[in-house]
Amino acid sequence: MTSLRERWRAGESTVGAWCTIPSTWTAELAARSGHDWVVVDTQHGLIGYDVMLTMLQAITTTGVPSLVRVPWNEPGTIMKALDAGAGGVIVPMINSVAEAEAVVGACRYPPVGFRSMGPTRARVVDSDWRQPLCIVMVETVQAVEIVDDILSVAGIDAVFVGPNDLAVSAGLESSYEGRDPGHRRMIERIAESAREHHVTAGIMCGTPEVAKQWHDVGYQMLALDADTRLLMTATEQIAERAKKLLSPGAT
Amino acid sequence: MTSLRERWRAGESTVGAWCTIPSTWTAELAARSGHDWVVVDTQHGLIGYDVMLTMLQAITTTGVPSLVRVPWNEPGTIMKALDAGAGGVIVPMINSVAEAEAVVGACRYPPVGFRSMGPTRARVVDSDWRQPLCIVMVETVQAVEIVDDILSVAGIDAVFVGPNDLAVSAGLESSYEGRDPGHRRMIERIAESAREHHVTAGIMCGTPEVAKQWHDVGYQMLALDADTRLLMTATEQIAERAKKLLSPGAT
Amino acid sequence: MTSLRERWRAGESTVGAWCTIPSTWTAELAARSGHDWVVVDTQHGLIGYDVMLTMLQAITTTGVPSLVRVPWNEPGTIMKALDAGAGGVIVPMINSVAEAEAVVGACRYPPVGFRSMGPTRARVVDSDWRQPLCIVMVETVQAVEIVDDILSVAGIDAVFVGPNDLAVSAGLESSYEGRDPGHRRMIERIAESAREHHVTAGIMCGTPEVAKQWHDVGYQMLALDADTRLLMTATEQIAERAKKLLSPGAT
Amino acid sequence: MTSLRERWRAGESTVGAWCTIPSTWTAELAARSGHDWVVVDTQHGLIGYDVMLTMLQAITTTGVPSLVRVPWNEPGTIMKALDAGAGGVIVPMINSVAEAEAVVGACRYPPVGFRSMGPTRARVVDSDWRQPLCIVMVETVQAVEIVDDILSVAGIDAVFVGPNDLAVSAGLESSYEGRDPGHRRMIERIAESAREHHVTAGIMCGTPEVAKQWHDVGYQMLALDADTRLLMTATEQIAERAKKLLSPGAT
Amino acid sequence: MTSLRERWRAGESTVGAWCTIPSTWTAELAARSGHDWVVVDTQHGLIGYDVMLTMLQAITTTGVPSLVRVPWNEPGTIMKALDAGAGGVIVPMINSVAEAEAVVGACRYPPVGFRSMGPTRARVVDSDWRQPLCIVMVETVQAVEIVDDILSVAGIDAVFVGPNDLAVSAGLESSYEGRDPGHRRMIERIAESAREHHVTAGIMCGTPEVAKQWHDVGYQMLALDADTRLLMTATEQIAERAKKLLSPGAT
Amino acid sequence: MTSLRERWRAGESTVGAWCTIPSTWTAELAARSGHDWVVVDTQHGLIGYDVMLTMLQAITTTGVPSLVRVPWNEPGTIMKALDAGAGGVIVPMINSVAEAEAVVGACRYPPVGFRSMGPTRARVVDSDWRQPLCIVMVETVQAVEIVDDILSVAGIDAVFVGPNDLAVSAGLESSYEGRDPGHRRMIERIAESAREHHVTAGIMCGTPEVAKQWHDVGYQMLALDADTRLLMTATEQIAERAKKLLSPGAT
Repeated sequence: MTSLRERWRAGESTVGAWCTIPSTWTAELAARSGHDWVVVDTQHGLIGYDVMLTMLQAITTTGVPSLVRVPWNEPGTIMKALDAGAGGVIVPMINSVAEAEAVVGACRYPPVGFRSMGPTRARVVDSDWRQPLCIVMVETVQAVEIVDDILSVAGIDAVFVGPNDLAVSAGLESSYEGRDPGHRRMIERIAESAREHHVTAGIMCGTPEVAKQWHDVGYQMLALDADTRLLMTATEQIAERAKKLLSPGAT
Repeated sequence: MTSLRERWRAGESTVGAWCTIPSTWTAELAARSGHDWVVVDTQHGLIGYDVMLTMLQAITTTGVPSLVRVPWNEPGTIMKALDAGAGGVIVPMINSVAEAEAVVGACRYPPVGFRSMGPTRARVVDSDWRQPLCIVMVETVQAVEIVDDILSVAGIDAVFVGPNDLAVSAGLESSYEGRDPGHRRMIERIAESAREHHVTAGIMCGTPEVAKQWHDVGYQMLALDADTRLLMTATEQIAERAKKLLSPGAT
Repeated sequence: MTSLRERWRAGESTVGAWCTIPSTWTAELAARSGHDWVVVDTQHGLIGYDVMLTMLQAITTTGVPSLVRVPWNEPGTIMKALDAGAGGVIVPMINSVAEAEAVVGACRYPPVGFRSMGPTRARVVDSDWRQPLCIVMVETVQAVEIVDDILSVAGIDAVFVGPNDLAVSAGLESSYEGRDPGHRRMIERIAESAREHHVTAGIMCGTPEVAKQWHDVGYQMLALDADTRLLMTATEQIAERAKKLLSPGAT
Repeated sequence: MTSLRERWRAGESTVGAWCTIPSTWTAELAARSGHDWVVVDTQHGLIGYDVMLTMLQAITTTGVPSLVRVPWNEPGTIMKALDAGAGGVIVPMINSVAEAEAVVGACRYPPVGFRSMGPTRARVVDSDWRQPLCIVMVETVQAVEIVDDILSVAGIDAVFVGPNDLAVSAGLESSYEGRDPGHRRMIERIAESAREHHVTAGIMCGTPEVAKQWHDVGYQMLALDADTRLLMTATEQIAERAKKLLSPGAT
Repeated sequence: MTSLRERWRAGESTVGAWCTIPSTWTAELAARSGHDWVVVDTQHGLIGYDVMLTMLQAITTTGVPSLVRVPWNEPGTIMKALDAGAGGVIVPMINSVAEAEAVVGACRYPPVGFRSMGPTRARVVDSDWRQPLCIVMVETVQAVEIVDDILSVAGIDAVFVGPNDLAVSAGLESSYEGRDPGHRRMIERIAESAREHHVTAGIMCGTPEVAKQWHDVGYQMLALDADTRLLMTATEQIAERAKKLLSPGAT
Repeated sequence: MTSLRERWRAGESTVGAWCTIPSTWTAELAARSGHDWVVVDTQHGLIGYDVMLTMLQAITTTGVPSLVRVPWNEPGTIMKALDAGAGGVIVPMINSVAEAEAVVGACRYPPVGFRSMGPTRARVVDSDWRQPLCIVMVETVQAVEIVDDILSVAGIDAVFVGPNDLAVSAGLESSYEGRDPGHRRMIERIAESAREHHVTAGIMCGTPEVAKQWHDVGYQMLALDADTRLLMTATEQIAERAKKLLSPGAT
């Protein structure tokens, strides 16, 4: 099986499912939905460690790679996600070279980093357990300004953009598609830097249409809407439509 | 607040959300989605008692009534669901008067039934805890043949149709809308019997359009698609659309 | 350590804690509270199997014996509680000799009963695992009428009275202390039958004062208030007292 | 992939892992250990529904088939295990033709049985979800006497022997290898009946050596030691050996 | 509904329940007990993230505001509690202006702070999700000395005193009511500073009487005894009283 | 009962069980296996807080002391483990005096340290709750070079060696027994420093034979193989042996 890293290196664009519901069943559904990778979001998702572990197992029911977004740049948290068998981590709010180096340090064994040895589940389920994907989030103005420095840190596999946080940090209107020109320019700037540093560019897109848009400027790691929003929308729509059909005046 | 029983008695049609995902969060979303009631399905849903309890609590975050579909007609299971605060139970595969009487017996305190006293959570959260909704499923040919006898059993609030099981039991092609005339006739027959016996008629509909159809023949308790299917469909569609947009040939 | 069975045989009166909160921590507190035994109530308590198991472990942190009240007289449920290490079971709503025999059958290995062999945890934690306490509940008029027959069934260790269900089944006013003379007479009748058949008599008492009262007519297994009620009362009282003290008019 | 049913039909002998520890991780280890199938034992194992579900998911991380031993012959319990994606069920203590027919009825959709339609997880993970393995346990003298009748019930895939219960029911000394000749004769008798009725014969063996022995008289479904015992033994042995080596007198 | 912030601004005194038992049921009881707010204590309470989430849902079954005490001043932990729908956080051991600023930073979106955008549950259940209560604990001598500086940090809603830690840090005898004059003076000093800086003053009180005492010197956020202690005391007392009544010598 | 600290001071060597499986049942088995102490490993074990708590309770079913290895040197995490009743903590990757001081600070109440007061479970189950064992890991070249300084920090009870991380950090071949002379010298160096500073020396050994070897150079805290590995090995071996016996060519 071709690894996600290899597919990205070969220039392939990939789409990802985003799990925020704390459930092994919804994680398994995500892994069987046709996406190329699945994120267990333990930052904004409603998921702690004990549930995350079982969700990673549920994703392993298919061959689809799993990634964990950790809540914050903490070595213990990153290492626990990797030992549990995540194929990689996404670390939010990286705003300096030192922070990026800390991420790589937590993901890699010596001499490259300082990850502690004990890949309890990872070694059993993933032949590539020594080289998980190390993905940093660039999502503030401050980080965009030094994005070249950040992406120069050796060992980073991908940079992932949080468009909402990026817009908020700049005082701009947020939208997945970057309706605000300043917002859009920053997102394009990150992709350029990624290309230059041979790092994969990723971004939260929401819809397929936005994914296509960012793909066209070089993003290969395209996250679609989170499960909470997909389910909430579908459930609300079905109720609303039914209510309308059942209302006295309806034909 | 007008109770569900009163709304049905007043002739109102209602739509219900159907929870099969074992998660408090998806249950809370269902309760906030605009449906009139929420079912925690512990028969075909992936939900056991310990998770069901917390899902009932999640539904109580709104004023929307909760119902539990139990796995089978067992007094201990029915009483546990009611003690946990369910607003009522839906009991599958009722095929005889004796079975229907057993359902009522498990739902009602003496002298009507034989429910044991100990409404630990129910008493705290539901002022109407002595009179939960008692709903029997009619979903076999055998049951349809004696539906008048079944619905004559005192204490039944509603009859709920499982169209798939009904079709399968008759060797007919299954469809929510009853494309097969024999299937459809049985479903209409149940509504007629319900009307005669002053019992609310309910049915699993899937789509709003089917809900409208069954509403028009007298069904007032209209269940829409289960959360598993809503989420699976939404997730698969978004991945498929994205893949199509990203494929080399796409414009 | 003297077993509970031996203490009862020696004429000792014992008091029990009653767990209805689904939590290992409250179970451990109950086991450390000075009661002689602890019940994990999976009938009216908000507790399913997966939580019950860990509560039994929490009770084993002390030497206090654990009992499980099962939801209903089902062999699979009784055996699972015993395999999980419960020191005995309390089985509700026993209304016939056949039902009592079924309870004993599920609690005892052949040739006495039909319990299946596989005491996974019981064998590890309880040297007396082959002889768990087998306790039937007599809590209907119908059962009181044949209480001598029920308690003649070989293998029953104790009979336990649910005063609420008993009163309700007789159409009498319920009270733990049996304010209604008819209620009281039935409770005394059960104790007499228990004495005659060398079976321990037990009852849900609520308060220590009521425990003393029933002790005086021969009850040795005296259950005090459930944890839900103790905590609810304590929490409500403290809030109410504080509100009163803080109200503008208070001194 | 060749299904387990096909391998048995082709005369192949298979060995199974037996999960009694309530944990997704030990279930995943079992699925990766080289056994041909994995049982989640919800009878004597310390496993309720909510944990069983996640253990079935953990087993699906490999292609190894999963089986659930249910606590008792109850239709609701059997159907829930199958809807959760178990590849089959093992139902204990089948002592009559009627009981065997009830097992088949719960495992098969009409017109063969009365299984209710709603294979929530099964349909998603198992293309063969309409035909799960239906396995009855013969483990009493009474059942052995009518084993030909039991195995004549259409729809049974395998008969599984519980040697301990069988010995106990006959008042004989128990041993996996059937040291008692009467015990052994009953086990051989079951295999003969299975062969005649084209039903696979299975048995709990404990050790590989006993598996080999029963294989030689026709058993193809050979269960090895449960995880609880394997872990307990390994942990105790390592402590004991260390204590010996560290004791003052040791060289 | 008037928010807690508004009630405090209007000068109202409020009492709070304190949850340390890891259980959705005890959390729901706390929310229904008549207290004005409920704390889920994930510092000294036996509660991790996955349980905290469901407890927050249980509290939402009423309109009573929830607060989470986090284990330590960590941005990821604070943000996870807020995204899960807590109405605010209480952050322990704030000993410097920089630490206080870090708390505010984690609670507020840019440009005020650096909270990351993704209020998965908060947005669904709380219309005021952008402005959760930000509460710092002053509980060391060192912090009291610079309490004016700490409470000058913009964005702090309340200061909460841990009287035990405060006494211990000063080498003084601890008591909720401040029997030691030095202890008491520090507690009064904090209230004065709070008043000056228009920050609400809060404190752990234990009993209603102590709450009244601190209310009288300006405290408006008055926490009463934790559930563990309330339940432990009630359970021990009932057992002790029963034992006394049942002892041979008792009348 | 003699405490672990006292046994170490008396020169006794002890062996420990190592829990990485997230399960109360395997924790209870470890506590009953004959080891002198049990570690709940929340660093490389698959265990988060909510499961850790119940595992600590399961260990308390015996008198065997429990230790928690925390994921990283974080005060909140250390204090939560201690409040939950752990008899001590093992803190990984201590590479400086400041880090060692932070560990002691988190483990001790003022004036020695800065642990916050609130030993919710610890106080109930452990009379020695004010003095938990404080154990630092020395497992890098950098730490070995300053091991004398690290172990001079007052309040450290033991130093624990992670031989794998130590070897990896030095670019040496790893083995529990220190086949590489450089690896072995570092391990011996740590024991010498421990002896000098009156600190107990501990090490992960895997097998009893390696435990004996390190015992002979002064190690008293000897951890044997983790449960995951013990179970995995036992399960794989039994399957492999059975397959060999059952293969056509086998006698």
